[in-house]
Amino acid sequence: MNSDKGHSRPLWVLAIHGGASAIPPDLSDAELQAIDDALQLALDIGAKMLVSGGSSLDAVQAAVRVMENSGVLNAGRGAALNHDGFAELDAAIMDGRDRGAGSVAALRHVANPIDLARLVRDRTDHVMLVGEGAEKFAQEQGIPMMPESYFITDRRRRELDRALGAKAGSTDSVSPSHSRGTVGAIARDTHGNLAAATSTGGLTNKHFGRVGDSPIIGAGTYAENGVCAVSATGMGEVFMRLTAAAEVCARVKYNKQTVAVASGEVIRELKSHGGLGGMIALDAAGNIAMPYSSATMLRGQVGSTMKAQVLGVKMKEGQ
Amino acid sequence: MNSDKGHSRPLWVLAIHGGASAIPPDLSDAELQAIDDALQLALDIGAKMLVSGGSSLDAVQAAVRVMENSGVLNAGRGAALNHDGFAELDAAIMDGRDRGAGSVAALRHVANPIDLARLVRDRTDHVMLVGEGAEKFAQEQGIPMMPESYFITDRRRRELDRALGAKAGSTDSVSPSHSRGTVGAIARDTHGNLAAATSTGGLTNKHFGRVGDSPIIGAGTYAENGVCAVSATGMGEVFMRLTAAAEVCARVKYNKQTVAVASGEVIRELKSHGGLGGMIALDAAGNIAMPYSSATMLRGQVGSTMKAQVLGVKMKEGQ
Repeated sequence: MNSDKGHSRPLWVLAIHGGASAIPPDLSDAELQAIDDALQLALDIGAKMLVSGGSSLDAVQAAVRVMENSGVLNAGRGAALNHDGFAELDAAIMDGRDRGAGSVAALRHVANPIDLARLVRDRTDHVMLVGEGAEKFAQEQGIPMMPESYFITDRRRRELDRALGAKAGSTDSVSPSHSRGTVGAIARDTHGNLAAATSTGGLTNKHFGRVGDSPIIGAGTYAENGVCAVSATGMGEVFMRLTAAAEVCARVKYNKQTVAVASGEVIRELKSHGGLGGMIALDAAGNIAMPYSSATMLRGQVGSTMKAQVLGVKMKEGQ
Repeated sequence: MNSDKGHSRPLWVLAIHGGASAIPPDLSDAELQAIDDALQLALDIGAKMLVSGGSSLDAVQAAVRVMENSGVLNAGRGAALNHDGFAELDAAIMDGRDRGAGSVAALRHVANPIDLARLVRDRTDHVMLVGEGAEKFAQEQGIPMMPESYFITDRRRRELDRALGAKAGSTDSVSPSHSRGTVGAIARDTHGNLAAATSTGGLTNKHFGRVGDSPIIGAGTYAENGVCAVSATGMGEVFMRLTAAAEVCARVKYNKQTVAVASGEVIRELKSHGGLGGMIALDAAGNIAMPYSSATMLRGQVGSTMKAQVLGVKMKEGQ
């Protein structure tokens, strides 16, 4: 029953992830550099807001938006493609102050799903909008509709072709595969408020209409002041069934576990159900845990008592 | 820290709900009788399966299907209509054995959403399918597409007209209202397995694409062997933000509360966040709790040590 609290309490912290899974061996150094750059920029932008007293909610949204726009992660442009060859995007954001949340899923034409999730929270009586109805809301809010081609990169097209090719001649139904690069951010601001945000294109070769854990409050995204904030990444179906993010917070709240122990145990339990992946989690005092069961997890952290640090992006030519 | 366990342990139990809210004063005796009949039939069909050793998963699905087909509850035919005048249907089912789950949302043409949720669980690698993609899956499975008119009843059309009329001349955005009649079922079978199922049309006048708590694992629906099973009904957005169903089970698991205390406290916490409603919950031993903060909750229960009983349907001319 140890607590991490007490030693060198940070005024503010920000942690981000760029997905949990192996780095494909054919990623070029330029691509790895672009991923590293995107994570560094996400930390920088979020840190600038937090250091000047900005809210954790704004900071996690801004950090996720940077990663959505990078073109090299599985969110926004560059997202994984579904079985029918187009990107379907999910995102959620949650405010630990009142557990207010906004969530969107199965978007096909919105460049920054995290911004639409924020608008669902701020401007509707709802928590979650999906599909055609969610895009109708985007249009009502004046958000431009992007063509499907905007989201499609050569790399994701090749990944889908490989997944489809692997099934050629098979009579099996769709066999989706985990895709590198879901993005997320969690933060504690100088006012002590927690927030979490997650954005993804989901699985390569997923069924049209499939929604994973990222936009599900309590599965891939959760924040509650005084308890913890979580953003997860991995085999989303298992994270949904085990309500992964809420489970971490329940262990912190009721089982009096540290966020490191709680998140580590939940990652192990997910793995025992076949759900590889990882998560970033922080407690009310700003202690960060970033456990994963996959080969690696792209991740980073920065805080008032800690320089910005990006981890998990292994460059071939040293780094 | 009392436990309900130990006295007169039932071999099997089934609890159902037909939504939490006030009964509209203009409901005729015939309509009330039809609601009562639907709940009785749901209990009878489920009980027949459970008494002969059938699985809790099959029993909750069958009970919910009866209520979806009734035409007088807010699920399947007779569901609440959204702002644009058509029904959008959500449902989820969860198996406590492995926490396997299937969920569907924003359906417009599927007569029995609970059956499609079951197929998502049984025949895909996914947990949740939404919108057009979910209906594509339904067609792949040979499920007939119903016209939108199939779902629309005169009563729901009048309710929507009232909601829209109340906003006439207003510049406010969509103002959804809670609708009587979400349906759900939870059961423990003779093998000790728990299951939960929920189905709904959501809020009257909701935004096109809005998804509530019913199809969200951990919010409106949850089942975990050895812990508890929950199906909720009410102002779904608050149930989602507080991960209501998972929260009940976390309190049972980690806080060692009885299911009655846990569900009662969660209903009170939801109310303190503006979320009126109710839930049915049972623990591993088959103890049932059915708390609600709304004016009433249509509900029923039956078990190996308990006759079928329907509650909450107040008939004008006595009963």
